[in-house]
Formats: sequence, structure tokens, C-alpha cells
Amino acid sequence: MRERELIHLLAARLRGTHSLLACGIGDDAAVWEWNEKEYGLLSVDTLYEGWDFDRIYHAPRYIGYKAAASAMSDICAMNGQPLFLMVSLGIPQGLSPAYIEDIYEGLRRVEEKYSVAVVGGDISASRDLWLSVAVMGRVEKSKIAYRRGAHPSQLLCVTGDLGGAYAGLKILQREKAVFLQNPTFQPDISGFNYVVSRQLKPEARCDMVARLAELNIIPTSMTDLSDGLAAGLHALAQASGYGFHVYLHRLPFHEQTQRVAELYDMPLTAFMVYGGEEYELLFTVPVFEYDKLRQEPQIHVIGYVREDKQVLLEDPFGNVEPLQELGWDSLRGRDSPQREGVSPSA
Amino acid sequence: MRERELIHLLAARLRGTHSLLACGIGDDAAVWEWNEKEYGLLSVDTLYEGWDFDRIYHAPRYIGYKAAASAMSDICAMNGQPLFLMVSLGIPQGLSPAYIEDIYEGLRRVEEKYSVAVVGGDISASRDLWLSVAVMGRVEKSKIAYRRGAHPSQLLCVTGDLGGAYAGLKILQREKAVFLQNPTFQPDISGFNYVVSRQLKPEARCDMVARLAELNIIPTSMTDLSDGLAAGLHALAQASGYGFHVYLHRLPFHEQTQRVAELYDMPLTAFMVYGGEEYELLFTVPVFEYDKLRQEPQIHVIGYVREDKQVLLEDPFGNVEPLQELGWDSLRGRDSPQREGVSPSA
Repeated sequence: MRERELIHLLAARLRGTHSLLACGIGDDAAVWEWNEKEYGLLSVDTLYEGWDFDRIYHAPRYIGYKAAASAMSDICAMNGQPLFLMVSLGIPQGLSPAYIEDIYEGLRRVEEKYSVAVVGGDISASRDLWLSVAVMGRVEKSKIAYRRGAHPSQLLCVTGDLGGAYAGLKILQREKAVFLQNPTFQPDISGFNYVVSRQLKPEARCDMVARLAELNIIPTSMTDLSDGLAAGLHALAQASGYGFHVYLHRLPFHEQTQRVAELYDMPLTAFMVYGGEEYELLFTVPVFEYDKLRQEPQIHVIGYVREDKQVLLEDPFGNVEPLQELGWDSLRGRDSPQREGVSPSA
Repeated sequence: MRERELIHLLAARLRGTHSLLACGIGDDAAVWEWNEKEYGLLSVDTLYEGWDFDRIYHAPRYIGYKAAASAMSDICAMNGQPLFLMVSLGIPQGLSPAYIEDIYEGLRRVEEKYSVAVVGGDISASRDLWLSVAVMGRVEKSKIAYRRGAHPSQLLCVTGDLGGAYAGLKILQREKAVFLQNPTFQPDISGFNYVVSRQLKPEARCDMVARLAELNIIPTSMTDLSDGLAAGLHALAQASGYGFHVYLHRLPFHEQTQRVAELYDMPLTAFMVYGGEEYELLFTVPVFEYDKLRQEPQIHVIGYVREDKQVLLEDPFGNVEPLQELGWDSLRGRDSPQREGVSPSA
């Protein structure tokens, strides 16, 4: 059973209601009444060793940083800003206090960069290393963006570039394989620094949330790309009841991502469409916002909202194909054969 | 290194500051500005298999219930009421969806009993079973109770009774040992239902927080007894800079706890003073509240705040001994020899 199905099954068992709650389980974060003008937001995300990071190439400070960024991304996906983090840590025997301190060094850098505060946490002796980060944020009521809300003919947009985190993973896995055969080997990521940093030290797009506010643009629907573009499109489609028409030639990518795709003789499209851990924002806006969008080079219009429920990808030759709802797990799943049954958290 | 020391070390590395934050790491929950009249509260607590529960005698619904109660107890310890829970779950391979559903059944019962809502969660494939529950609550500013604030000659109080959860653990461990030798054996907990339920399905004392409000009593300092009475006393002493004088004959206990102590030829005092997982509240109040306190049979005055920093226990014969800061871990640690290095979360 996939995590999402299981979570649906479980959510159905819960009451999940409260007079202060505007939206419970089902969107990127839960939404509650803070005051007349603002909603509070709550979300939690767990990174698990061997699945979301690898101790061989993830320095501990990057593990802390990535866990926090990944959790904060859910707040950005509501068009909100994170405020407070709580960090639960599972620590395997034998990890030195210095190693754990370095995980916290990563969290300190997150505090500084994002003006957030780690306000609590606990530590459990564990067999595997894991971090669960709960995050609280807020958003002006007038600016909140749910997954629902896309409407036909609206523009579909994405921030940053796509597929970089997966490209970085491919490079890191290549270097790890060499390292395991020859432990004196020095990893060589030259020429791939950008995509490797996308994998090791991703950023939540709080900057893009702030930029949208500056441009006075309120997305009609939004989610993040933690599970990849295809999963994000299907999440927005399902929530709104409409579909999407996506132009392949509009999808943004970094030159290094293209080079990794060539290196592995894989289609660049697979990286852009199914690569996860991106933490970029996918959102829809009314057509009349087009001129404003053009002022921000990191925002790309990649398609539009369809009247029907289809999610379609059109290539530069005019061929149109349905975009499968393959998730990120299916791409990277082969790298973690020990993980079956319940899929881990996204 | 004990968890508490490690958390101090780590907290020192963090900034942990925010303009909305009234109190970060260091008390039972973090405190932030909700509005003019109220604070918001945040805390997180993790239960880990083999340490905080045992699948052999903890039915999955009790695991869910206990994890939530344990997390909510931190909110009660600030004199607040819980509102929302987020649940991260680590699930070992081979656990059936029905088992996981039953964990959620426990959470649903918590939602009902405590009028809270589970508003989010995620699931990770894991080698061990664990639950991390982040909880948000609130408290009127005028009623918040920090760990600091005890003042000489104030009364020291505790709710409920002491040592029951540890007594229940002893009975369950006895039954487990028999079961492991003879799997057809039916466990017999007759005569010990109360203490067993204290271990399996503890309650957060939200009712006592409400009762204090009814009685119009605001504790001057408060914590919960998740780590046992001795640890709670030392936490309040350290935070206030004063000590405590505790009368052994005033400590409340259940008749079943006494019987378990006799059964194992252990001093009842060890159960009451060092037994953890109680989730009872330990607090101080001004002397003039004494008459109000007497209206609530579940509140027991067990001593007073001293001028000096000593934490002393006086027996019925007038002998006075310093109360060691032995934690709950030291009592139960022997049962989990695989757990060394970092002590798990409390």
C-alpha cells in the first residue's frame, strides 16, 4: 500500500474536527483560525535514513537542513511563512555527540536563513537515523492557497527548475558506488555542484512566497513538488476537479540536469516530470496576472487548467500524451529494495 | 550521555529566538504569542518500541492512545489545554494495515475524550515501531504555569496517585515472561487492573487543569511527572532556585501499587518517587489556596517550598534525607539493555 492510500484510510478513521480548524488532513498543511486576519498552519515531515538521505554522502548538517526545508516547504505550499520548528530525532547507537551536534548546526543555519526558531524536540535511541520535523506557520487569510481552486483557462506555473534533485542523487549514487569499492577514493562532483546541492541541501521556497506577495499575486491553487511534478499536477487536478495541459518545452531545467540525463542515457523528461524532493512550488493564477508573472524570472508558465480532468503533456511536435500519476517513489524505489509494504513519507 | 544533557548541549547550539516566542526550549512546552489574552503552546514527544511500549502487551490502540496522552501532558504541565495533534509514525515491515488502523483507533479515542483533532501526520517505513506526536495547545496568559515560579513557603501539590504506571509495568513484564515460556498461556492481571491501565492507557490531566481553573487556582510553577516525582521536583527546584520539603506519608498511592511493591519485595517509596510515565501534575500554589485545594480529592498537598535549594524527603519518623535526582530511566533501564549511549525520550 502506498503512503497516500494508507493515510487516506487512516484519516477516514479519525474525527479530525475542531471548531478552530479551517482545514485538517488532506492539503499540504492543516489550517486553523489564528485571528481575524490570519490562519495558522501546521505540518510534519519525516526524513528517514536510506530513503531520504544517505549518511555516506549527506553530511549531518545537511540532514538537519534538508529535514527542516522539507517540512517548511509544506507551509510555503499554502502560500504561508514558517515560524517555529520542533524536531524529533532517532539516533542509532554509536553516533557521536559531535555528529548529532552537526545535525543541529544544520538546524541553526535554517533558523538563520529562514528567520524561524526551533522551539522543541526530543531524542530517541533508534536503530536507524531519522528526523521528524513539525512546523508551524501562518498566512494572511486573504492569501491562503489550497490545493483546490484551479479553474479552467487559468495559468499553470512552477518556480525554479525541475529534476535537479534527482540528477544530484544520480551523481551522488555514482560516487558512492566508486567509494564503496575504493574507500580511499575522493568523490568528484565537479561540474555537478548545482544538482548535487539540490539533493543535499534543498531550500523551501519561502522567497517565492514573499515574491508572489510583492507582485501582489495570489495563487488560486498551490502545492509543492516534494513528490515531483506529475504527483503535484495530479494532486491539484484531484482537488479542483479539473485537469492540466502542460507544454514539455516550457518545463524549466538546469543545464547540469540535462547533462546527467545524457550521462545516464535517460530522457530529460523523466527527471523533470517524476524527479521528487524539489520543494519548488506548483500553482495556478488567473490569466490576467500574466504580465506580473513575467517580472519574475524564477516563475515559469508551463501550461493551463483544462475543462476536463485530464492531465496532458504536449511535446514540441504537438503530440499530446496523458501524464501518468507515477510518483517519485517509483523512480527512486529501485535504490531501496529493503523498503516494501508501506512506502515512506514524502 | 542522558537525553536531558544532550538536549541542553544541542539547545545551546540553536538560536531559538523569534519575536513571537515567549519561551522556547527548556520548559514542558514552547510558548508563543497567540493574541492579547492567550499564549499558544507547542511540544513534541516520541514513544519508541521496546522502551516506551512493548508490542507483546500493548495493543496498538493503546500505543496510539499513550503516545497522544504523553504529548498532551506537556501542554497540561503549562496549565494549558491541547487543541491539535500531528502524528509521525515509523512502521516496521510486516505490520498489517489493520494493526496501523488500530493505532489510529487509539488516536480517534483521544480525539473524542479530549476534544482535540489530529490534523496531520506522516508514515515512514522503519525497523522499529515508533510514534512521534507534536501537539499544539493554548492557555490564557494570566494562567500560564512555567517550571520556574515556586517561592519559599508555598505549598507543593500533586494530582492523582504515584507509582501506578511502574507497578503496572512490573505486572505486565511478569505476564510477558510467562507468555514467552508458554505462548498458549492466558495473561492474568486480575487484581491489578488499575495499575495495568495506568501503564497501558495513561491519561493526560486536562481534567485537573480544568479543575484548577474552576477552583480559581493558578499554580505558581508546574511540571508533569513523565519522568517521575524525583525528576519533577528537581526540575522545578532548578528552575526556581529553591528547594522542596516532601513528606513521605503525604504521597498518594493506590492500594494495587502497594501490593505490587510487596509482591516484588521493593520499597513502595521507590515506586512513588522514581516511577515515571505518570502524567500527573506537580505544582506549587500560595499557602492561602489551601482551603480551595481541599475541595478536590484528587489534589494532594505533599510538602512545601524551602528557602534553600535542597530537595528533601521526610519519613513518618522525622528522618530527613536528600532526594536523589535519579530519573525514571534508571529504574526501567535494566529492562532495555540494548539501549545505551543516548537515552531515549521521556
